[in-house]
Amino acid sequence: MSDATPPKSAVVKEERGPTGALEVDAELTDNIAALLEAEQRGMVLNLVADLYPADLALLLSHLPFKYAHVVFSWLPPDKASEVLTELDDAFRAALLRESPPGWIARLLQPLDTDDATDVLADLPEDEALQVLPNLRDAPEVHDLMNYPEDTAGGLMAAEYVAVPYEMGVEQATEIVRAHAESIDDVFVVFLIDEDQQLKGVLPIKQIMLSPAGTRAIDIAETDFISVTTDIDQEEVGRIMQRYDLVSLPVVDESGRLVGRITIDDVVDVIRAEAEEDLQLMSGVSGDESLMASTFQISRGRLPWLLVGLFGASLSGTVIGTFESALEEAVVLATFIPIVTAMGGNAAVQSAAITVQGLTSGELWEGDALSRLGKELVVALFNGIVLAALLCVFVLLFGMGNVPRLAATLGVTMLAVIVLATTNGAVVPFLLQRFGLDPASAMGPFVTTLNDIIGLTVYFLIALALYL
Amino acid sequence: MSDATPPKSAVVKEERGPTGALEVDAELTDNIAALLEAEQRGMVLNLVADLYPADLALLLSHLPFKYAHVVFSWLPPDKASEVLTELDDAFRAALLRESPPGWIARLLQPLDTDDATDVLADLPEDEALQVLPNLRDAPEVHDLMNYPEDTAGGLMAAEYVAVPYEMGVEQATEIVRAHAESIDDVFVVFLIDEDQQLKGVLPIKQIMLSPAGTRAIDIAETDFISVTTDIDQEEVGRIMQRYDLVSLPVVDESGRLVGRITIDDVVDVIRAEAEEDLQLMSGVSGDESLMASTFQISRGRLPWLLVGLFGASLSGTVIGTFESALEEAVVLATFIPIVTAMGGNAAVQSAAITVQGLTSGELWEGDALSRLGKELVVALFNGIVLAALLCVFVLLFGMGNVPRLAATLGVTMLAVIVLATTNGAVVPFLLQRFGLDPASAMGPFVTTLNDIIGLTVYFLIALALYL
Repeated sequence: MSDATPPKSAVVKEERGPTGALEVDAELTDNIAALLEAEQRGMVLNLVADLYPADLALLLSHLPFKYAHVVFSWLPPDKASEVLTELDDAFRAALLRESPPGWIARLLQPLDTDDATDVLADLPEDEALQVLPNLRDAPEVHDLMNYPEDTAGGLMAAEYVAVPYEMGVEQATEIVRAHAESIDDVFVVFLIDEDQQLKGVLPIKQIMLSPAGTRAIDIAETDFISVTTDIDQEEVGRIMQRYDLVSLPVVDESGRLVGRITIDDVVDVIRAEAEEDLQLMSGVSGDESLMASTFQISRGRLPWLLVGLFGASLSGTVIGTFESALEEAVVLATFIPIVTAMGGNAAVQSAAITVQGLTSGELWEGDALSRLGKELVVALFNGIVLAALLCVFVLLFGMGNVPRLAATLGVTMLAVIVLATTNGAVVPFLLQRFGLDPASAMGPFVTTLNDIIGLTVYFLIALALYL
Repeated sequence: MSDATPPKSAVVKEERGPTGALEVDAELTDNIAALLEAEQRGMVLNLVADLYPADLALLLSHLPFKYAHVVFSWLPPDKASEVLTELDDAFRAALLRESPPGWIARLLQPLDTDDATDVLADLPEDEALQVLPNLRDAPEVHDLMNYPEDTAGGLMAAEYVAVPYEMGVEQATEIVRAHAESIDDVFVVFLIDEDQQLKGVLPIKQIMLSPAGTRAIDIAETDFISVTTDIDQEEVGRIMQRYDLVSLPVVDESGRLVGRITIDDVVDVIRAEAEEDLQLMSGVSGDESLMASTFQISRGRLPWLLVGLFGASLSGTVIGTFESALEEAVVLATFIPIVTAMGGNAAVQSAAITVQGLTSGELWEGDALSRLGKELVVALFNGIVLAALLCVFVLLFGMGNVPRLAATLGVTMLAVIVLATTNGAVVPFLLQRFGLDPASAMGPFVTTLNDIIGLTVYFLIALALYL
């Protein structure tokens, strides 16, 4: 993480957007592809020299793969290193495939240990093992590779500044200076005892403010927040966001400092987790990326579609059960999409709010009843409005036995909206209770549950009122 | 933003979770409610004294409102200030309602100008105008209030350290020291000329590293990223995330420094925007919060339900059009939920991925065709698997004219999956093209579009193959 970015020449200043960053767009990729076609290596390098690493990564991912591979191999090693951390995991692994271990090691050398570990983790294991011994930070990276990727241990880096807690600020300043060149983002100094136990957290600003002769521990925060290596990354994100932390120390079970997590890593986690939740809600498993192969995509989606097919078959069975009713009044079929669509819509609305509350930690299990109460009031009101509209609609466009049909549909609509809203509000709590991700409440599974309940209610009411 | 948090006493250490933070849960709120019932002011204050501001805010939002109001009014002003910035907007406005302007001003005094502005913006205008003159930073806050809340201008704070760009590092250090007490998070010093034009960004670490006598501009980054005040907050979030910035300078149209945005504000924006997108996808408008009144909730949801009802009526009309076909073979009704549910599922899957790509900026308009191509391959494969399964299902449980029904359903399923997937992949691009939020592709509107297309295809194929 840096407060600004490395200097670039200003060759294409006129193409820059409002932020001062060069705009990476389809025009630029087309130009570069044309230059590659014409084997204009110098001009390509001149163009990309001007890009920030994140933009260069975006550009590579929009080039045909063989071109991306060529451009990447042309980059100066320092530039290639920076680009590496910005690439999509699968795309990066593909770019590095069959590269000599020595070259990969050279690219990983300037990276922080957490980034180097991430790159290695996506390589085939035997390749990673060949690269590892060539790294300067091999022992640290090796240690980091043992933590699951989605935990605090998997997020943390071994780059931090720690000093004995009784040290004076002058000496601490010298140590910060000595490390500052190699550690990009020094916001705090950690204070430890001789057993590596974390004793305090000292913001670097505080060091500048304190008179010479002050002991580090006397100006440090001793009531700091830390996490153990096994904490889930989603929880890490919540903690750093909730307490507005830029740097979070990670300790082992016995309280020894083993690493630190910086806010930039967590920003990525927060976005990744939001995307994962949305995918889960949409019936896509396995963190599908834009780079995923069609096989991977299909593998992530087909199971949900099969669940959906099974569920929809049950809904079909409900209709089959009432086939004689349908034969008597085929007009009832006309309203099947209204029953299913409206139930689905109402359920997704209440589920979205409940899932968000549970995911962010603002809603607790104990809130289930009060949440449900509020949702029921809303459902009653919305249900009455919709039921009234539907009745008017039927009365206006008179189909079959008009007043009875209107009554049937009105009562059904009210019942469906109330039941579906209840489902949407309650199911996420139940899933959380049983240790499942509440976000899955919005997948095809629950939509189908609503169809089944809605259709059953519809035909039962139709039998009672209409036929 | 701080690197750690203010010290707290350790009264209830044993109730702390893995992070060292006191766990705020239903048990704690129950205890506090009981103490309030018994008017044990001292004990309540003793308990909450030990909480981090964010946790205290969470606790207040879980107490009955009258109790929350009492506890808030008991808090020492400094604590109340810190809690204020962590509260939900609507809840905060309710807590402050009818408080004397002088007291509100006192609570706002220690806050950064961006936070003070946010609090004022949610108060009724006449109340805000009464508070404003009492603030030390009244002119800055007044200026900030002129920017729309969801722009860079609305996010930025007037707290930053700026020095003339030719100043030496010793003098710059003195200025940083002088400001460090009042500005929590000094990560960088901005370098300006006599016209307040931003010339460079100097990380504070760099100051510590440089020998005396160095000119600030010579060690600063002069090719920095900045935004103008009118840039949308979502774009600000993307920029700070993409370029890993902790502090982003904001300039006016003529390049004069007017404020800076810190990463902690952007973390909140990223989460808020993700929540807003999810709500939009779920058919909830107006950024519904857990604190929203049932009237507000209903107002945000009912319009979408009405759109859904209108759309579903069109689906119903499709069925109505084919009523004679249904009368001939009422078994066709049984498969209506399969057609609608599967189309909806497939569309939501492809829409989710496309919307994410467009929202994050990884997918461009020019990618529409290649994206569609990939989705079609997936749709064909998944469609064939599902069609085959459905055929087997019909053949096994034989209903009506078995082979023809199986053929009808197989062809329909394949067509519906392919069409719905296409919709899901294409509609977000179209919405973006016309300046609309691609996320709305997943709302009730498009689900219904799928129902209409799916049912039409179904009955047409049934007429051609089955009847």
